[in-house]
Amino acid sequence: MKICTRVSAAFLAAALMVGASHAVAAEPIQPIVVPDDLDLAQVELGKKLFFEPRLSKSGFISCNSCHNLSTGGVDNLVTSIGHGWQQGPINSPTVLNSSYNIAQFWDGRAKDLKEQAGGPIANPGEMAFDHSLAVNVLQSIPGYVDEFEQVFGTAVVNIDRITQAIAEFERSLVTPNSRFDQWLTGDANAISGAEKEGYELFKTLGCASCHYGPAVGGEAFMKMGLITPFVTDNPAQGRVDVSGQEADRYSFKVPTLRNVEQTYPYFHDGSVFDLNEAVDLMAEIQLGQDLSDSEVEKISAFLRTLTGELPAMTLPQLPPSNENTPKPEPFGP
Amino acid sequence: MKICTRVSAAFLAAALMVGASHAVAAEPIQPIVVPDDLDLAQVELGKKLFFEPRLSKSGFISCNSCHNLSTGGVDNLVTSIGHGWQQGPINSPTVLNSSYNIAQFWDGRAKDLKEQAGGPIANPGEMAFDHSLAVNVLQSIPGYVDEFEQVFGTAVVNIDRITQAIAEFERSLVTPNSRFDQWLTGDANAISGAEKEGYELFKTLGCASCHYGPAVGGEAFMKMGLITPFVTDNPAQGRVDVSGQEADRYSFKVPTLRNVEQTYPYFHDGSVFDLNEAVDLMAEIQLGQDLSDSEVEKISAFLRTLTGELPAMTLPQLPPSNENTPKPEPFGP
Repeated sequence: MKICTRVSAAFLAAALMVGASHAVAAEPIQPIVVPDDLDLAQVELGKKLFFEPRLSKSGFISCNSCHNLSTGGVDNLVTSIGHGWQQGPINSPTVLNSSYNIAQFWDGRAKDLKEQAGGPIANPGEMAFDHSLAVNVLQSIPGYVDEFEQVFGTAVVNIDRITQAIAEFERSLVTPNSRFDQWLTGDANAISGAEKEGYELFKTLGCASCHYGPAVGGEAFMKMGLITPFVTDNPAQGRVDVSGQEADRYSFKVPTLRNVEQTYPYFHDGSVFDLNEAVDLMAEIQLGQDLSDSEVEKISAFLRTLTGELPAMTLPQLPPSNENTPKPEPFGP
Repeated sequence: MKICTRVSAAFLAAALMVGASHAVAAEPIQPIVVPDDLDLAQVELGKKLFFEPRLSKSGFISCNSCHNLSTGGVDNLVTSIGHGWQQGPINSPTVLNSSYNIAQFWDGRAKDLKEQAGGPIANPGEMAFDHSLAVNVLQSIPGYVDEFEQVFGTAVVNIDRITQAIAEFERSLVTPNSRFDQWLTGDANAISGAEKEGYELFKTLGCASCHYGPAVGGEAFMKMGLITPFVTDNPAQGRVDVSGQEADRYSFKVPTLRNVEQTYPYFHDGSVFDLNEAVDLMAEIQLGQDLSDSEVEKISAFLRTLTGELPAMTLPQLPPSNENTPKPEPFGP
């Protein structure tokens, strides 16, 4: 009950923020807007670092390995592959539109993108490196030192600047101009009748009480299995690990539904690959609704209209290491 | 002796092919030229497939994993990481300018890029998949089926078309406009005096008797350790495994030196990360020359002028899987 109240308040706030004069004011979903305050130099440096395998112990894993920008900002695996082919504990959430998230990681343990960016680098099961070692690597590379100086004013390379640049790049990873956003902003023909019906169901059934805002999610935590328990082998306990509150057990950040047709498999345990199956299950365990096949199809059709356009990006060219650069250690202890 | 004769003949042929009227006719190295006969639709499809992790059993490894186009077309590891974090047997050669190679792989066991492209997909130690399984995956994805139809005229997806498209993309991966090529084509100031001296040493010492042509290598096989044995733990035997000729033991394809400052570590065993050390060792074991530090520095300086420009490429967006797509199997047997 308490959770529902909190969500409703947030929903109301989001709706009001859009402004009464705008046509979309009454909708729970707002269009994705490209930020106009990006530091483009930081974005370019951050792009290099996002694709930089030398931020891992092995020299093989980069941010892009698990948040692949060719595949919706995810790896499309149940759980990710880390250093030494370790099996990750949880499904990799998309980096696209992640700036809209209330906090980062499924349990929200990082307050923002910058704090998140440092996590996988030092996680022994992911990139398995160390912040000071990562700094040592970049500091040995003149191409990076020069760029840090251009971007930040001095030639200092540190983890604060590394994560700042990655976070700024990630702020640029928004996906505007989906067919749904075209419809939202006035093109009545941008989505079909069935897709529109799916959207109406999405609202009337209650999906939108959690999946709202520009990212269609990401703005609240919610118990997974609100009405009926979610059956999973995954041991993740969710938000309780951060808050220490028993009420937060099995509570996870509501994932964005933007580009959801690309971000399978679904849920924090990555257990469901089929979008229809995911919709059907969510209606059952979160809303206590038994949907018909036709309703499921319509909602999925609506959800596929949320696929937007990632800004075209050229593949970064990374500056080479040299004889002073610490060598990668893919194998061995 | 026999090998030297063969190389000289090839060298002469290359020099003659350039045409006597051209200023570079007398040079053993010719400029990189962007091919003007590319099938651009195949290139675009091939780019997607090059970045496609679903061509691997795990759904995690793509061509770009070991031939990373952000880092000179290599992974900068001693030997590559394959399925299940297996340690590869040999250093990953660059995919850049690989269309100039006489054959593919270090031992030349694939006659061309198309034949090469099928190898890693089915290699249990690399992508660990199977050609028919790879076809099944792509065939299940409407976005791919449509593109195969546009590119090849019919909606058939098969390994022949997959490898054809990847090879055509790889043909586009040339790096023109290096400072050395600018100098070759008439800009006398494009390289420094020391770099020019390094180039003169490269020719007079005999490096250019193997490293010649537009790719500065790739056009012949040569024994590694011609004068003095090459000491390595790597068990690779080289060309003998293909030819069955004892004379080809420890004979490997001469690697391209284009972009060599980016393609460390060097040699088929990836044992040397430092370019100076590589130059020094090659002079010793291939040419019987004991170079001074100054000579080594000049040759390395020349070699760094061979870094060209990879055509800017936008990161491909890969079409999503669906409920009919076979799922990746990163873990388990």
